[in-house]
Amino acid sequence: MLYLIGVGLSNYDVTMEGLEACRRCKQLYAEAYTSNLTEEKLKDLSKILEKEIDQLGRTDLEENAKILINQAAKEDIGLLINGDPLIATTHKTLLMEASASGVGTKVIHSTSILSVSMGESGLDFYRIGPVCTIANWSEHYHPISFYETIKGNMDHNLHSIMLLDYDYERQSTMPIEKVAFILSEAEEHYKKKIISEDTKFLVLNNIGTENGKIKLYTFAKLKTAKIKGMNTIILLAKLSNLEEEWISKIEKA
Amino acid sequence: MLYLIGVGLSNYDVTMEGLEACRRCKQLYAEAYTSNLTEEKLKDLSKILEKEIDQLGRTDLEENAKILINQAAKEDIGLLINGDPLIATTHKTLLMEASASGVGTKVIHSTSILSVSMGESGLDFYRIGPVCTIANWSEHYHPISFYETIKGNMDHNLHSIMLLDYDYERQSTMPIEKVAFILSEAEEHYKKKIISEDTKFLVLNNIGTENGKIKLYTFAKLKTAKIKGMNTIILLAKLSNLEEEWISKIEKA
Repeated sequence: MLYLIGVGLSNYDVTMEGLEACRRCKQLYAEAYTSNLTEEKLKDLSKILEKEIDQLGRTDLEENAKILINQAAKEDIGLLINGDPLIATTHKTLLMEASASGVGTKVIHSTSILSVSMGESGLDFYRIGPVCTIANWSEHYHPISFYETIKGNMDHNLHSIMLLDYDYERQSTMPIEKVAFILSEAEEHYKKKIISEDTKFLVLNNIGTENGKIKLYTFAKLKTAKIKGMNTIILLAKLSNLEEEWISKIEKA
Repeated sequence: MLYLIGVGLSNYDVTMEGLEACRRCKQLYAEAYTSNLTEEKLKDLSKILEKEIDQLGRTDLEENAKILINQAAKEDIGLLINGDPLIATTHKTLLMEASASGVGTKVIHSTSILSVSMGESGLDFYRIGPVCTIANWSEHYHPISFYETIKGNMDHNLHSIMLLDYDYERQSTMPIEKVAFILSEAEEHYKKKIISEDTKFLVLNNIGTENGKIKLYTFAKLKTAKIKGMNTIILLAKLSNLEEEWISKIEKA
């Protein structure tokens, strides 16, 4: 059996069901491709579960998925996934391949950045548009199509949750100044006046963990903000009174 | 201290952190207003936690919130909430009132219908528009404004997650035939041709639990479907190839 086990956002977000599955597994792996478990979280989990946890990268999960599936045909193995599993396509493909090989699979959910950011932000969740991701730029890959999502959301007065790519070297999401630079470049390209100096962003820092913080920034301030750790940003549409009240309260916290 | 503790979707979705908080609390309450814990889930939780759990209704959580807050000023109490807390406005208001009274609060997250339905549906989560709720009709209250959300989503080829009101007498979501009736009435009122006999809906039944099932229905079939338990429906925009493939796979399961 192949278990996909969500380990949530904080270091202690494995559910009772997940805990039981982990204990049943002969071997545990941690998914280190679509997201990543920090060294500290891996250590905490390994201690709680009294088991070694081996990390798997892109090649193990895609080209060499067959090796993993063959092992799961013989014994119970668990793949630990940050947040809630099944958001990334990689995991769905893995489940489909296992199924096609006649190997049993089971998904165990946990807390997700999607629901936690919706809740902690205090925003009306009926007013949250499609989510997008700001991908890290590499030498020859400069994606800015997320701008089309935020433009569509702003046209309908909807808030935009923007996930940020993981930066393996920093063990955290990509630097906020880099995010601001990409936002500027996207605005420069599309020129739809979505992002100006006064545009408001909510920064959700290490949300869902012991050190979670939320702070409101104008784009001008965001450009020079130094915010370490795991960040998610929300481009705000016009706030309702209740949303204003909640944000002013959590900002002080 | 007032703990808001998410108990997720399955009976064993409390996280390690939630478990520890529950054990620390002098008294546990279950929120029985915005959602509801079934009798079976309450019994399971009470057994695991070795504690009595008292249910609180609308009056306890809104008009009489002060009583709860005063108790939390003296000792640790926990409010168990189905799914992930903070989605409902009631809980945010409660936190704000507690804070204003100088009472410490802590939110402990768990699995949420929002992320679980996004993941299990196999739909591309970048293509999911704003969520809406189909509220149960009462004698003098016939809300159909959810139609504006699904119309906006369909105009942009986005999928619509539609949450269904809880029906206390049935200990499950409102009957699917009633949902279909409300959908027909909304179409009749707005006449934007969103819902016809061939319109496709994904029904997520008891999703995130041991008995989770997903099935594709045309609207014609949905009208006579008998599906007990907790349901969420998704009005589908045009499916991508990968989405088609996943749905055909999970349907067979």
